[in-house]
Amino acid sequence: MTTLNVGLIGVGRMGRMYGQYLARRVPGVALAAVADQKPGVAEAFAAEFGVAKWYPNHQDLLSDRTIDAVAIVTSTSTHKEVVMDAARSGKAIFCEKPISLTLDDARAMIQTVEAAGVFFQMAFQRRFDAGYLAAKRKLEAGAIGDPVMFTSISRDPYPPPLAFCDPKVSGGLIADMGAHDFDAARMYMGEVRRVHAIGGTLAYPEMKSVGDIDNAIVDLVFRNGTLGVVQLSRNAAFGYDIRGEIWGTKGSIQIGYYRQTPILILTPEGIAHDAVPYFMERFEDAYLAQIQNFVEHVRKGLPPFITAADAMAALGIALAANRSLREGRPVDIDQPEA
Amino acid sequence: MTTLNVGLIGVGRMGRMYGQYLARRVPGVALAAVADQKPGVAEAFAAEFGVAKWYPNHQDLLSDRTIDAVAIVTSTSTHKEVVMDAARSGKAIFCEKPISLTLDDARAMIQTVEAAGVFFQMAFQRRFDAGYLAAKRKLEAGAIGDPVMFTSISRDPYPPPLAFCDPKVSGGLIADMGAHDFDAARMYMGEVRRVHAIGGTLAYPEMKSVGDIDNAIVDLVFRNGTLGVVQLSRNAAFGYDIRGEIWGTKGSIQIGYYRQTPILILTPEGIAHDAVPYFMERFEDAYLAQIQNFVEHVRKGLPPFITAADAMAALGIALAANRSLREGRPVDIDQPEA
Amino acid sequence: MTTLNVGLIGVGRMGRMYGQYLARRVPGVALAAVADQKPGVAEAFAAEFGVAKWYPNHQDLLSDRTIDAVAIVTSTSTHKEVVMDAARSGKAIFCEKPISLTLDDARAMIQTVEAAGVFFQMAFQRRFDAGYLAAKRKLEAGAIGDPVMFTSISRDPYPPPLAFCDPKVSGGLIADMGAHDFDAARMYMGEVRRVHAIGGTLAYPEMKSVGDIDNAIVDLVFRNGTLGVVQLSRNAAFGYDIRGEIWGTKGSIQIGYYRQTPILILTPEGIAHDAVPYFMERFEDAYLAQIQNFVEHVRKGLPPFITAADAMAALGIALAANRSLREGRPVDIDQPEA
Amino acid sequence: MTTLNVGLIGVGRMGRMYGQYLARRVPGVALAAVADQKPGVAEAFAAEFGVAKWYPNHQDLLSDRTIDAVAIVTSTSTHKEVVMDAARSGKAIFCEKPISLTLDDARAMIQTVEAAGVFFQMAFQRRFDAGYLAAKRKLEAGAIGDPVMFTSISRDPYPPPLAFCDPKVSGGLIADMGAHDFDAARMYMGEVRRVHAIGGTLAYPEMKSVGDIDNAIVDLVFRNGTLGVVQLSRNAAFGYDIRGEIWGTKGSIQIGYYRQTPILILTPEGIAHDAVPYFMERFEDAYLAQIQNFVEHVRKGLPPFITAADAMAALGIALAANRSLREGRPVDIDQPEA
Repeated sequence: MTTLNVGLIGVGRMGRMYGQYLARRVPGVALAAVADQKPGVAEAFAAEFGVAKWYPNHQDLLSDRTIDAVAIVTSTSTHKEVVMDAARSGKAIFCEKPISLTLDDARAMIQTVEAAGVFFQMAFQRRFDAGYLAAKRKLEAGAIGDPVMFTSISRDPYPPPLAFCDPKVSGGLIADMGAHDFDAARMYMGEVRRVHAIGGTLAYPEMKSVGDIDNAIVDLVFRNGTLGVVQLSRNAAFGYDIRGEIWGTKGSIQIGYYRQTPILILTPEGIAHDAVPYFMERFEDAYLAQIQNFVEHVRKGLPPFITAADAMAALGIALAANRSLREGRPVDIDQPEA
Repeated sequence: MTTLNVGLIGVGRMGRMYGQYLARRVPGVALAAVADQKPGVAEAFAAEFGVAKWYPNHQDLLSDRTIDAVAIVTSTSTHKEVVMDAARSGKAIFCEKPISLTLDDARAMIQTVEAAGVFFQMAFQRRFDAGYLAAKRKLEAGAIGDPVMFTSISRDPYPPPLAFCDPKVSGGLIADMGAHDFDAARMYMGEVRRVHAIGGTLAYPEMKSVGDIDNAIVDLVFRNGTLGVVQLSRNAAFGYDIRGEIWGTKGSIQIGYYRQTPILILTPEGIAHDAVPYFMERFEDAYLAQIQNFVEHVRKGLPPFITAADAMAALGIALAANRSLREGRPVDIDQPEA
Repeated sequence: MTTLNVGLIGVGRMGRMYGQYLARRVPGVALAAVADQKPGVAEAFAAEFGVAKWYPNHQDLLSDRTIDAVAIVTSTSTHKEVVMDAARSGKAIFCEKPISLTLDDARAMIQTVEAAGVFFQMAFQRRFDAGYLAAKRKLEAGAIGDPVMFTSISRDPYPPPLAFCDPKVSGGLIADMGAHDFDAARMYMGEVRRVHAIGGTLAYPEMKSVGDIDNAIVDLVFRNGTLGVVQLSRNAAFGYDIRGEIWGTKGSIQIGYYRQTPILILTPEGIAHDAVPYFMERFEDAYLAQIQNFVEHVRKGLPPFITAADAMAALGIALAANRSLREGRPVDIDQPEA
Repeated sequence: MTTLNVGLIGVGRMGRMYGQYLARRVPGVALAAVADQKPGVAEAFAAEFGVAKWYPNHQDLLSDRTIDAVAIVTSTSTHKEVVMDAARSGKAIFCEKPISLTLDDARAMIQTVEAAGVFFQMAFQRRFDAGYLAAKRKLEAGAIGDPVMFTSISRDPYPPPLAFCDPKVSGGLIADMGAHDFDAARMYMGEVRRVHAIGGTLAYPEMKSVGDIDNAIVDLVFRNGTLGVVQLSRNAAFGYDIRGEIWGTKGSIQIGYYRQTPILILTPEGIAHDAVPYFMERFEDAYLAQIQNFVEHVRKGLPPFITAADAMAALGIALAANRSLREGRPVDIDQPEA
């Protein structure tokens, strides 16, 4: 198999991470080019990591015929344009989550991808985490009988910048953070039929000014009648709180951990350890495995590990939950958008 | 202070436990009499524990003028009659939870208690558990800032007999099991404004025949805008799963534990420990502290630690949740009964 | 079976505990009399717990023909006299650990007990602890293959009064604290062939004035060639640190726990819980089970659960370890006393 | 700063690991050449990782004037020759532990290194582990008062090949495995004055044929009078058991963890998780940090993070422990070799 030439589009926080992995830790790949609209960013990254080419925008990178595939790590609101351009240029596509801010946008993207016949893989890195993977294997092996209730907790140690909290930019708490939980819910339990959400701006009053909330609870009723609940928060003051539980007729699987550094301090004040600070400390290996998986699947002609349909389904749940929150009533998934 | 003469009404599983505590482990009290409708039960208990008197029904016990106070541990459907009779006889009353099956019954009981001017204390033993107590102290000391989300999990290792599952007898899963969680919710977060419940008969299909469910999720919106979620289940195959979390702006308090026996087994099959089997192993000390507290408060003329109003509020949440489950919509607490 | 009339000799800290259990929580027994040399102590206890008779010394209690059995909880240095008097009076005997300060004393006691043909049971309450018991069952069930190394850690939260630390009174750190560990070692691994001890006065310099140490490590070589190590300390600043490990060819069993109250506090300072404060919080159930076991064995005519030979063996290890510490060399168990 | 050209000598299991890190994950370095005596090994590694040059022996690599520094990862018995050759060739040296099999060899190596004036850094990767590092910081910050007892446990999941167990090849259990524990002991507690060791061939009888043991306990008395104990085993049937404890006058620091995958399985068989399989899963980050540290210190002209004297001291403890084991008596560190 020849080396896959990948172009990185978007060199922000997440883009830098994927870029470093592609430059150094993914076998079978060459990070051939980077693009970023912000002046100097792509050039600086290219210099630091020895990338041969850099471009000031995604179009120029997509015109480069030596590029086989692209990793799109731009802000969500630009996904539609960049993905559609990439599809038309015939590149294999890796797209950071969430796919878009609306289902209409997602549908348009998928149509273009399908018309172009290009490879398209979504990013949901928890599907590559050792814990979430092992839970899936245990579940499928029958370790807990039939799953009947799913719990997922995602709590960030602090809120994003206020501008980002604007639901028009990020989709708001439920769409931005819940995407991972809704995807995990589908992975373990199947499709969702109905959601109900409650939430509030309880820790950071300033979020009200942009119309976002900082804590939410989203109930899920799956099509098979089983139950789920997702807890989201921006104020995990002690660190990064990511947990899940698959509750079955014969037992339970719990996912997650708190201690980062392997020491325990025992003093008269108590017995204490530290916490996982944030997502990179928790999911670094999963992010690496995810981009390796993309490269491997493209090179081997395998189907995408996570599809556009997965992206649509997670987005659909989030938008239905947002509607439930607005309207104060349960919302069926087949009518997520008003 | 003179010794308090207590009569025990109802010598079933819970009644035996309270009876043993009153006979042996509560200072300042004499278990002076027991009553049970089932032939031979009161007599046998009296013989076993050296109780001087036994009666075949509660009325006879209540007529005994040497009895100062009664512990009522009969089935919920009889609480109304027994409590009202006890109030009219002027005895101090300890009443096992839940207070009754309907709010109307509870109101009638409270009116009679108030008219008689007798002492009335409800049983919610978690309020005497070292964990729940310590959590309350930590919360009040400001350890986690302002509480914004409350999680409570109650999962039994196996279902009660099918006859008991009939909502007309036990109130059903949400009223029977959730009472403790709703009381804890109020203790930490304040009054509830609105509930939403989802549930299903997912582990024991036979429960459908009596109209009960075996798993449920109940969302709570408190009057102050904070959030809560209660998870209930009858199929904790591994043991007794009782946990809580008070989620605050500056940290979190988690309540609960799994390991019963202090050993850990490390083998090639994994690293494993046992679980808490059921409620007596988890809450034995709390039950003892609760009945001691009742005796102490009556003897010292202190107000009841847990009031009839507490019982009403927990019942109101449960009934509203049941209605939400039936009607598929959120239900406000000021309209819990159709 | 008739009720066993037990007399309690010694109403100090441990004596009060056994006395309460005998008065209230042990079936089949009557606490018929108490004795303590300290003026007023026996009388006050008798009044508080409704004990019919009290005596100012053990001889008077032993002369009481209505007493069937005695629990001897006096200071170690008096054990020889009290036990021998009790044996001669024909009472069944429960003797708090350690049996004595020297092997010669122990031998004399045992001879008298055997000559009198009375029941004699030693106190080693860890043999009644749920953790130590479960470990034994697991070991015997083959869960970890053959045991090859035993670790035992006993660390007190603070030192006893300085007067008590005097090795002439308490036997010193190794004999006083290590008795439990040496007994556990024998229970799991068999007899000890050789010991080596190191130690120091490292936390409380004032202990040097009475000739005691506050930290020690004692190596054990068992007769079957397997290995053990006991760690002792008086400065567990955070609480009571009691742990054990049985290390086998196919796995390991670890005994012990730290958290007392079932809550976890998660704040920016870390994730913390409390510790077990001291021995009553850790071993209360074991102490109760131990005295119940004594009463049950006497009443049923069963042999003692823990014998005088067990007491001798644990003492022999302790004395050999003390000699090793003094002489700076390993000491064989068949020559423990110089 | 210019890039450091490093040559890797020895491409066995550990050599491959360091080689991959040098090729891909260490900044400021070029893996310029590899050498291995085994035919084809260096060539194959060079091809796989794009290393420009490969040599069939260490002398040829050392003759390469473009090489600035070498990582020596050959078998311990060859360290003396390779290190001395490297020193004479003027290369900066990274040497995998243990430094040698005898103190005489180590002294000769150090003399040559000092005469040549080259940089020499020993490998003790635990000094780069997040847990051991954090423990050191906490200790130095006074979190537990003065340290008085140190415990270190190293237990491998299975024994090395029998040929390797021969003490003439590996130094035997105590020297081969204990090196890390003795180094950690010195890091936290200071120099060792006296040791005492017990051990046995308890799990793998076949080891007797080569003269090695599979379980050992080594007591340490430090020059400041504090105490230590090291437990070593080859039969951690469940995984890799690496733990430490620094016991202080005001508290304790415990190092280590068991769970590898962040999931917990709760079934009627118990509550279980997995274990850390072996050293790469436990110390991967530490090995990477260690080789990065070497490169950084050489490039910046900093002194070695771990010195030849550290290597000598750890070896001295191990050899004294071996002598103690043979002779059945404590051995002072100033006379470790017979």
